Amino acid sequence: MAKKIRYGMVGGSMQAFIGEVHRKAINFDPRVELVAGCFSTREALNKETGETYCLDPERVYADYREMAEKEAARDDGIDFVSIVTPNSTHYPVAKAFLEAGINVVCEKPLCFTVEQAEDLKATAETKGLLFGVTHGYTGYCMSRVMREMVAEGKIGKIVSVNAEYAQDWLLDELDPDNKAELNMAVWRTDPKMTGASNCVGDIGTHIENYVAFITGLKIKRLLATTNTYGKALDLNANIIVEYDNGANGAYWCSQVAAGHCNGLAMRIYGDKGSLEWAQETPDVVRYTPKNGAPQLIQRNTAAVTEKAGACARIPSGHPEGLYVAFANLYQNYVSALIAKRNGEDASQFIYPTVDEGIEGVKFVHAVVESAANNSKWVEM
Amino acid sequence: MAKKIRYGMVGGSMQAFIGEVHRKAINFDPRVELVAGCFSTREALNKETGETYCLDPERVYADYREMAEKEAARDDGIDFVSIVTPNSTHYPVAKAFLEAGINVVCEKPLCFTVEQAEDLKATAETKGLLFGVTHGYTGYCMSRVMREMVAEGKIGKIVSVNAEYAQDWLLDELDPDNKAELNMAVWRTDPKMTGASNCVGDIGTHIENYVAFITGLKIKRLLATTNTYGKALDLNANIIVEYDNGANGAYWCSQVAAGHCNGLAMRIYGDKGSLEWAQETPDVVRYTPKNGAPQLIQRNTAAVTEKAGACARIPSGHPEGLYVAFANLYQNYVSALIAKRNGEDASQFIYPTVDEGIEGVKFVHAVVESAANNSKWVEM
Amino acid sequence: MAKKIRYGMVGGSMQAFIGEVHRKAINFDPRVELVAGCFSTREALNKETGETYCLDPERVYADYREMAEKEAARDDGIDFVSIVTPNSTHYPVAKAFLEAGINVVCEKPLCFTVEQAEDLKATAETKGLLFGVTHGYTGYCMSRVMREMVAEGKIGKIVSVNAEYAQDWLLDELDPDNKAELNMAVWRTDPKMTGASNCVGDIGTHIENYVAFITGLKIKRLLATTNTYGKALDLNANIIVEYDNGANGAYWCSQVAAGHCNGLAMRIYGDKGSLEWAQETPDVVRYTPKNGAPQLIQRNTAAVTEKAGACARIPSGHPEGLYVAFANLYQNYVSALIAKRNGEDASQFIYPTVDEGIEGVKFVHAVVESAANNSKWVEM
Amino acid sequence: MAKKIRYGMVGGSMQAFIGEVHRKAINFDPRVELVAGCFSTREALNKETGETYCLDPERVYADYREMAEKEAARDDGIDFVSIVTPNSTHYPVAKAFLEAGINVVCEKPLCFTVEQAEDLKATAETKGLLFGVTHGYTGYCMSRVMREMVAEGKIGKIVSVNAEYAQDWLLDELDPDNKAELNMAVWRTDPKMTGASNCVGDIGTHIENYVAFITGLKIKRLLATTNTYGKALDLNANIIVEYDNGANGAYWCSQVAAGHCNGLAMRIYGDKGSLEWAQETPDVVRYTPKNGAPQLIQRNTAAVTEKAGACARIPSGHPEGLYVAFANLYQNYVSALIAKRNGEDASQFIYPTVDEGIEGVKFVHAVVESAANNSKWVEM
Repeated sequence: MAKKIRYGMVGGSMQAFIGEVHRKAINFDPRVELVAGCFSTREALNKETGETYCLDPERVYADYREMAEKEAARDDGIDFVSIVTPNSTHYPVAKAFLEAGINVVCEKPLCFTVEQAEDLKATAETKGLLFGVTHGYTGYCMSRVMREMVAEGKIGKIVSVNAEYAQDWLLDELDPDNKAELNMAVWRTDPKMTGASNCVGDIGTHIENYVAFITGLKIKRLLATTNTYGKALDLNANIIVEYDNGANGAYWCSQVAAGHCNGLAMRIYGDKGSLEWAQETPDVVRYTPKNGAPQLIQRNTAAVTEKAGACARIPSGHPEGLYVAFANLYQNYVSALIAKRNGEDASQFIYPTVDEGIEGVKFVHAVVESAANNSKWVEM
Repeated sequence: MAKKIRYGMVGGSMQAFIGEVHRKAINFDPRVELVAGCFSTREALNKETGETYCLDPERVYADYREMAEKEAARDDGIDFVSIVTPNSTHYPVAKAFLEAGINVVCEKPLCFTVEQAEDLKATAETKGLLFGVTHGYTGYCMSRVMREMVAEGKIGKIVSVNAEYAQDWLLDELDPDNKAELNMAVWRTDPKMTGASNCVGDIGTHIENYVAFITGLKIKRLLATTNTYGKALDLNANIIVEYDNGANGAYWCSQVAAGHCNGLAMRIYGDKGSLEWAQETPDVVRYTPKNGAPQLIQRNTAAVTEKAGACARIPSGHPEGLYVAFANLYQNYVSALIAKRNGEDASQFIYPTVDEGIEGVKFVHAVVESAANNSKWVEM
Repeated sequence: MAKKIRYGMVGGSMQAFIGEVHRKAINFDPRVELVAGCFSTREALNKETGETYCLDPERVYADYREMAEKEAARDDGIDFVSIVTPNSTHYPVAKAFLEAGINVVCEKPLCFTVEQAEDLKATAETKGLLFGVTHGYTGYCMSRVMREMVAEGKIGKIVSVNAEYAQDWLLDELDPDNKAELNMAVWRTDPKMTGASNCVGDIGTHIENYVAFITGLKIKRLLATTNTYGKALDLNANIIVEYDNGANGAYWCSQVAAGHCNGLAMRIYGDKGSLEWAQETPDVVRYTPKNGAPQLIQRNTAAVTEKAGACARIPSGHPEGLYVAFANLYQNYVSALIAKRNGEDASQFIYPTVDEGIEGVKFVHAVVESAANNSKWVEM
Repeated sequence: MAKKIRYGMVGGSMQAFIGEVHRKAINFDPRVELVAGCFSTREALNKETGETYCLDPERVYADYREMAEKEAARDDGIDFVSIVTPNSTHYPVAKAFLEAGINVVCEKPLCFTVEQAEDLKATAETKGLLFGVTHGYTGYCMSRVMREMVAEGKIGKIVSVNAEYAQDWLLDELDPDNKAELNMAVWRTDPKMTGASNCVGDIGTHIENYVAFITGLKIKRLLATTNTYGKALDLNANIIVEYDNGANGAYWCSQVAAGHCNGLAMRIYGDKGSLEWAQETPDVVRYTPKNGAPQLIQRNTAAVTEKAGACARIPSGHPEGLYVAFANLYQNYVSALIAKRNGEDASQFIYPTVDEGIEGVKFVHAVVESAANNSKWVEM
């Protein structure tokens, strides 16, 4: 049987949430195995995580730079690293692995400045490496289906977009009587840790990325209002974008919208029909052809177009969930790695790359700039 | 038994849609009777409509000015007139009846210019008359319930608003191959008939009015983009508003959004909870208290607050529909008329007045001005 | 203009719920006017109701028998009577008017025994009169559309039915600590007032009637369980039916199902597709063609078939509500009266007749018999 | 670190659907590893599957009996076997492993006869082994939450149940013109392969198991109709059950219900409230307290009760999906194995056991017996 693709992880200790999701998602692919890690700056936790996954103790590193160097030097070194650390460290960690010649998958947001982002891209290109960014929602099977439907012209030319990402987990920030130091008060007010934006950076970028993934539209310019409600960083934002085709889109993100958990939702309107989708029920798309009745298109049914529909893993009506979305991303990334290694065409495998990461960073900065300048238009 | 309230109608022939809704809605109130009309400029149709409603032929007028004068002169003249003519005629018709000393209920949009709107208000005040504007959606029972919930502080201080009105009936306008002269091509491109805006004027104003009715918030300033897609007037618009309390709201209206019929929908977020409502299912409100589960509050159930809940007419689970919304508006207006006649307090009866009409006209003009000036902020 | 159709009402005082719905619904039709009534056995209330509707005091009767006789004797007597009295009185009232030669519209359930029901039918036939029964839900526009879709073969041969009517307003009956005499405890335990069944008679019959209206299927036999929870009459029932085409259906009705208001819902499965509908959102039908995506078909959109779709009154997305459903029933009944008077074909006008009333009574008795006999099959 | 729990699999080649789900689900638990298998009777496929998972070729067995013997003989032999073979082989395979002293997890339906089922139970007890049956849907986090809510009395005494499992993937079976040999025509008509029932055995048992899991109610007796539509085995069934507390429930299962994918849905009504849940949107429960508004309770929110809520893995609003449901089942089973090995209390870990498997087999036989005897009541 074929040689396994070996990977390492930076961040993602047993106590972390998103690293565990990545690990389980990668695990869906029997072609891949975890062989190295630098899971935590806390020694005991780092060690424990390595043991849990039966890693060779020598390959459980205290320092990511050491990991990059030593893995690069091994014959059986990792093929790629998955970076799931706090946002502020994405850039140096990714840079270190790229320079060591190791392929990278990095959590979003990619980094804090456009310069950093473009530097990562240039480094990856110079080294001839594949750089993935885990905008996980694009991995849902129906995301692929919608992208294909738009490309096939099912909804015609896009004339309007309405998208949002609403949460309510920071509602307590609005309580003036709240004397307890909230989690956010500690680190979300420090731009060194959070970057130029809290809400837009954390979830607004998902809107930008998701709409771009589905529609292929480029944002030409945007204007925005952000709301801090007396805190240091934004908790809510409204953004109007203008795409290269002349249409407008309205984006709203909020962390203080009572009743929303992870409410990424998107509606795309074209001159021949529309598509509606919500992350919390990702297996179904509402498609309305012009002059027809709205249709509820479900993953893995006869109504799904063939090519993208192939990503479905289990029968329709059995929810696949977030793990599968991430598994699909990694599966594509790993397939691209293998294709590249074999000298085959890697472009057929779709995953968000460093380019999408750059767009995300630009988007955040444009929103911040507009909001700071009386909502003026900012070119992208 | 008490003397009936007599009313007349201008517009609303047998072939008109909205006049028929008004008539049936008014008919829900046994205190009121139709006794006069100027239903159409087409003589035969005017006459036929009068006969259908068994009116005295003398009180079926060919001209609204004649109607205003003659009704004002009769001992048994109409107590109020309901104006359901095309938008361009609202101002002169309303003005004529006010000057004749007759109370007025007028369809929205009230008129085309702020000057006209304020003139109507001044005339009504001078004459001591009640002026209602039929923003029908505020008549739904649950609209009253939500207004009361907000006023009671159920959702706390409002921090964000997201509202929209989406339709798709003008999608054919986007078809460049469409050689047939479309309805809109005929009269919606002529500002003399349509006013400064098509989409914002027709349905955007409903968003403005509805949010204001529920929340009591005033718009301090707004910015907007509008889309004409090569036609003379707007078919789609995105608007960001800033309220007097500092919060922002995002409004979207469209007549080219495939899959939407009369999709007025509103979500209000406060620091203690949220409310969501959609016109197409008006009997239920989604209310989420902070840290609680979303609740589906239905008209006429124990969960509804008592005062506003009293407007319910039939048991919960039996949809009341649009006619009842209009019936509730007229019922309040007629109750106010009777209270005023009897020297009692008329302010307890809630219906949209000429003030709301003025706000609507201002809103449209602000949107048009912002869109024409690179989306700059426009003060209200 | 044409002579108006005159009607009178028995029951339906100002304090009654359903009589008011009937009156407002009939009022949608300008061809009809209310001219007589026997609204209440309470003299003052009867008189007040007559005054409210400006009736000639001579035509406000204390006794329905007197009303039948005197109206029959007048040249301008009523063309039909609408009977909205308590169930126990339907039979004698309807009988009296039929014998006086007056057409009848009667609330459901038609009466208590099959003999009574068939006697009413025979009397109507002998006298040559039209007898309508107000199964109001069949009046919804989409009910007509579904009936047409089934008749056209859109879902093929029916293979399974699942229908229900769930309410929760009698939940307090289950509380053993409830010492207060509940409404139901007073009159719903007395078969003289309620008939052989409470829940099945009141709402189970709606299921039977609605499914028959949409599908045209006849019930060949049925079996049932009923639940009284220690009370005299049923509060919940499960029924399995076998249709004449060999398929089965499952019906469930309950008045103790927490969270349901007027939850009549129906799902019809055929070998070429299915239809789903719920009374609380009556303007939309979920139609799934075999191998296709579910479609949400909305009243008055292009997706609606033409003939039945013509019943829509207002634009799609504006809910018509229960009043309109009743208005549609009465409109058809009145059109049939007029057609008959003019010697034209009355059969094109669809409304539930005494035949449907008979089926309802038979259905209730079959359920009661099966439940009393260890759920044995009972032939219809 | 602790010794891993080793498992083997019978069935579940690379080409099988459900085996892959099991493997990925077990993989969520880093305490467990796959070390042996007998994946297919086709040698090449068996070998390929073993290689994919990097198994020692000696532990990829051509025969399950050989596997049971050899694994039992090894010091590092498997701790449990997961059986995911066709239904007809569950009994002999499970029996072989039990007799070899190896713990068993078996897919449902457990086996074909009550005698077989009870034999498996007796064997497991004699050998002191843990026997799990993968009724996967009970593994959803909200299934645990609902079970806890019922146990806590949140909905009071249960008075009515309505549950169903509807699919449409066998609709083509109804087509008389379908000359092609359908999949089902081949093996679903052969009771040797399918057992006494097709639809009830395959999906009806999920209803029975799920309701029992949530409510704790025992079925005292049941009656049923089944529909074969001219085929050898049932494609649709309606069942009325009577529970030990006197309440009734209605169950419906179908494989010919257009528009349904894996529509397991359950509604439980008590005298203090109700619960509604559907498998296709498993993260949310509709809970209606008596006299309150319906609440939408979502996994991992503050509204979820604490103990059962702990099973949530990722933040609310991120769908966990079917893999996680199975992962939860296996996690509990493995925790029980470890607890047992350590002499600790294993009963705190909840997973469906051989007892639930027995109930399922009894249920199928009772339905078949009732349907064959004119829907008579059959005691359980």
